[in-house]
Amino acid sequence: MNATAAIGVTGLGVMGRNLARNFARNGYTVAVHNRSASRTRALIEVYGDEGAFVPAETAEEFVAALERPRRLMIMVQAGAATDAVIDEFAPLLEPGDMIIDGGNAHYSDTRRREAALRERGLHFVGTGVSGGEEGALEGPSIMVGGSAEAYDVLGPMFEKISAKVDGEPCAAHIGSDGAGHFVKMVHNGIEYADMQLIAEAYDLLRQVAGYTPAEIANVFRGWNRGRLGSYLVEITAEVLAHTDAETGAPFVDIVADAAGQKGTGRWTVQTALDLASPVTAIAQATFARAASGQSELRAAYAGLPGGTRPPLSRTEAERFTSQVEHALYASKVIAYDQGLKMIQDAAAEYGWKIDLGTVARIWRGGCIIRASFLDRIRAAYAADRELVSLLGEMEFAMEITDAQVPWRETVASAARRGIPVPAFSAALAHYDTLRADRLPAALLQGQRDYFGAHTYLRTDRPGAFHTHWAAPARPETPA
Amino acid sequence: MNATAAIGVTGLGVMGRNLARNFARNGYTVAVHNRSASRTRALIEVYGDEGAFVPAETAEEFVAALERPRRLMIMVQAGAATDAVIDEFAPLLEPGDMIIDGGNAHYSDTRRREAALRERGLHFVGTGVSGGEEGALEGPSIMVGGSAEAYDVLGPMFEKISAKVDGEPCAAHIGSDGAGHFVKMVHNGIEYADMQLIAEAYDLLRQVAGYTPAEIANVFRGWNRGRLGSYLVEITAEVLAHTDAETGAPFVDIVADAAGQKGTGRWTVQTALDLASPVTAIAQATFARAASGQSELRAAYAGLPGGTRPPLSRTEAERFTSQVEHALYASKVIAYDQGLKMIQDAAAEYGWKIDLGTVARIWRGGCIIRASFLDRIRAAYAADRELVSLLGEMEFAMEITDAQVPWRETVASAARRGIPVPAFSAALAHYDTLRADRLPAALLQGQRDYFGAHTYLRTDRPGAFHTHWAAPARPETPA
Repeated sequence: MNATAAIGVTGLGVMGRNLARNFARNGYTVAVHNRSASRTRALIEVYGDEGAFVPAETAEEFVAALERPRRLMIMVQAGAATDAVIDEFAPLLEPGDMIIDGGNAHYSDTRRREAALRERGLHFVGTGVSGGEEGALEGPSIMVGGSAEAYDVLGPMFEKISAKVDGEPCAAHIGSDGAGHFVKMVHNGIEYADMQLIAEAYDLLRQVAGYTPAEIANVFRGWNRGRLGSYLVEITAEVLAHTDAETGAPFVDIVADAAGQKGTGRWTVQTALDLASPVTAIAQATFARAASGQSELRAAYAGLPGGTRPPLSRTEAERFTSQVEHALYASKVIAYDQGLKMIQDAAAEYGWKIDLGTVARIWRGGCIIRASFLDRIRAAYAADRELVSLLGEMEFAMEITDAQVPWRETVASAARRGIPVPAFSAALAHYDTLRADRLPAALLQGQRDYFGAHTYLRTDRPGAFHTHWAAPARPETPA
Repeated sequence: MNATAAIGVTGLGVMGRNLARNFARNGYTVAVHNRSASRTRALIEVYGDEGAFVPAETAEEFVAALERPRRLMIMVQAGAATDAVIDEFAPLLEPGDMIIDGGNAHYSDTRRREAALRERGLHFVGTGVSGGEEGALEGPSIMVGGSAEAYDVLGPMFEKISAKVDGEPCAAHIGSDGAGHFVKMVHNGIEYADMQLIAEAYDLLRQVAGYTPAEIANVFRGWNRGRLGSYLVEITAEVLAHTDAETGAPFVDIVADAAGQKGTGRWTVQTALDLASPVTAIAQATFARAASGQSELRAAYAGLPGGTRPPLSRTEAERFTSQVEHALYASKVIAYDQGLKMIQDAAAEYGWKIDLGTVARIWRGGCIIRASFLDRIRAAYAADRELVSLLGEMEFAMEITDAQVPWRETVASAARRGIPVPAFSAALAHYDTLRADRLPAALLQGQRDYFGAHTYLRTDRPGAFHTHWAAPARPETPA
C-alpha cells in the first residue's frame, strides 16, 4: 500500500466519521480504520464520493497508508479504550510520528500518555474538539495540546477543517501536553453554567412574569439580537417555541425535568477544587443537574412551603424581564470569568503558556458556547495579556456597574418568591466575595486556630501566629 | 518481651500521643512506638505516670508487646506514610490481628488497604477520629469502619476512650471497609459549611446591623443557649470577644482574611460530584475559602460597585438579628441534610449499612460539629430509619416553615446590600430546587437534545425520545 494519506482516523463512530469526512472534504487524503471493519465499509459506501478515503482493515494496513511523519487520530471512548488503541498502534509507529487523541480525555490522562510516548520519540497531541456531530462535519472549534513542533505540522490541517469567524480559524495550539483537553474541559464546564443560567432566567420569566413558553421564546429571540447573542440563547428560543406534536402542549412541559450529564462539568469542578479556583457558578450548575435527578429527595421536600408570588402586571412583567436580562448577562460574565481564571490557575500549576485571547478567539465559532461577547473577551485579552479578570476591562466593568440594581433585585425577588436560582446567586456571591474589603474568612481563621491550633496570619506583620485560647469548660452535652 | 499490651500506637505526633495517653488513662496497657525513638522516650518521660505504657524501639519489639489478636493503631500522615507503615508491620502480624488506621485517610485508600489486608487474613479498620488534639486526649468522636468481627474486639475500647453524651459513648461501628473514614470526611465537610454559615451571619451582623465584634459575641452567646447551641457557635463567641493584646483591636480585625484548608472539604465535594449528591452548601463553603486566598483576583475586583447599605436603627438591627438567626438555623439544617443524604448515597453505592441515627448520636460529643440539635437528628432517624431527609420529620419541617420569611428576607437583604452569602443562598436554592414541582431542567434536556442528540424522557410515557430539530442556519458569527 502506498503511503498517501495526510491523516488517518481510527474509530468511526459519528464523531470520528464526521471528522474524517471533514478532512476529506477539505482536500486531504484520509485513511480510515475501525475495530470492526463494517463501519469502515459503510463510510466508504455512503460518503466515499466526498473525497479521497483510504479504507484499512488492519492496523498494519492503516499505518502503512500514512505519509510521514504519520498523523494518526484516535476517535474512541475516553479511558481504557483510548489506552488500548494507543497500545495497539504505538509499536507500529516511528520516532517523529504523531498520535492525536480527539476524544474527551481527562487532561491528566493526556499528560500521562504524552509523557510516556515522548520517551518513545512519538508526539502525543491531546486535542479538544467541540461542536458535536454537526461541528465535527461542518467545522468544529479545535483546542490543540502537545508540542509546538507537532502543531507546526498539524495546525494548518486543523485550522482548515475548523469553523471560521471573520475569516479566522477556530483552531489553535493552546499549550503543551494536556492543555488542549484541559481547555476543552473548562469549555464544557462553562457550558454547564451558561445553560443553568439560561434555565434560571426561563424559570423566573415563567413563574414570576407569568409568561408562556412561546412568549419566553420571543424574549430569548430578542436577547439573541443583543449582547446575549449566542448559540445557546438561539436554540433556547427554538426549544421554547417548539410544540409537542402528540399533545399540542409546549414541548418544555412534556419533557421530564431531570437533567442528564456526561461528566465534564463534574471533572471541571473536581479539578477546580484541586486548584483552589472558585468556579462556583459551574459547581452550582453541575449540582443542579444532580439535584434534579434526586427523585427520592424531591419527593421528601415536595409540598414544603415557599415564598409568595404576587402576579405582575404587564408593565411590571416587562420591567422584570429587563432586570432578568441584566442578571443573566452579569452572571454569564462572572461564569466565563471563573472559567478563564481557572485556566490561568492551571497554566501556573502545569507550566502551560496559555493565551486567553486565543482561547476566546477559537470559542467564537464551532463550539456550543460560541457567543458574540467572546469577541470582546478576545479583544480584552489581546489588549492586556496579563488581565486577571474580565472585570479589569473597562467595558465589562461598566456593564457590571449598570447591572447592579437589576442583578441584585433579580436575586432578591427569586429568594422572596421561592424560585431556585443557585447559579445566579453563586455568581452574585462570587462578585461580592471578591470585591469585599474584608471577608469573614478572618473569623474562620480564628475558629481554626481555636479548635485545631492551625495558626493564622496577621494584617499588620508577617509570620504565623497562635493564640493560647482559654478552653471553655468541655460540657458533655453541648450547651 | 511479654505480650501485655491491649493496644499499640505507632506514630506519636500530638494526635497519636494523646490517643495513647487516653487509652492508658482508661486502664489499658499501651505499647508505644515511633520511627524516631526520641518521641517515644519523651512520651514516657513526661506522661509515663499516667498509666501503663510499654515503649518499643523497634517494629519487632512493638509487635511482640501486643496481646493477641494484636491491635495496632497507626497514627501517621495519610497517604504514602500510612502505606509505608502498613508495609512495615503487616509481615510481622498473624491472621486475626488488627491494624487500625486512625489518620485522616481518604476512604478509597481505606477500601483498597482493607481489601489487600483481608486477603492476608488481617483486619484493617479505618477509623475516623474527630475532636482535634484535645478530643484525642479527653474523649473524641470515633467513627469505626472495617469488619463487625473487628469491632467486637475493638468497640469496647473505643467506646471507653470516646466522649460521652447522656452516658452514651460517641463511638460506633459505622459500616464495613471505608465507611468510618467516609463518614469522618463528610463530618469535616459539614464542618466547613457550618463555619461558613456562621461567618456569613457574623458578616451580616457586622455590616448590616452595624454591631461591633464584642456585640456580635454577645449575640452568639445568646444563640448558643438556644437551638443553635453548638461547639462552633460557642467558640465563635469566644473568638469575637477576644481582643488583640498587642493592638487593643478586636482580634478578628487583625487576622488576615484568607482561610486555610487541609483538604477534607475538597474531598467531600469531589466525592459528592461522583455520587451526584448535591452538597451545595459544603461546596460553596469550600470555594469561599479558596476565593479568600485568591489575592490577585481580589485585587482585580476591588473597588467594583456593590449594593446600598442604609444604616439600621437599633430596633431594626434587633429585628434583623432575629431574622439572621432563622436564616442561620434553616441553612444549617439544610447543610446537615445534604451531608447526611450524601452518606446515604454512598451507602447505596458501596453497600454499606449505615444507620444515620447512630452517626448523629456519635457526633453529639467529642467532635467539632457537636451541637444540641444532633440529638433531635438522632431521634428523627431512630424513629424512622428510612427517613430520606430531616425535613420529613415534623419538628424540623415546622421550624423550616417558620423560617420562611426571615430566611428569604436575609438572603434578599444580603443580595441588595452587597454582602456575600454564598452558603446561605446555596442552602435556600437547594431547598427551593428540591421542593419545586417542575424544574427548568426540562429546558436543559431540550437544549441537550438539540445540540447533542442526547435524547430526553417524557412526563407522560416511558422511553427515550429525540426530536428532529430543524437546525437553524449556522452563522459563521453567532448572531
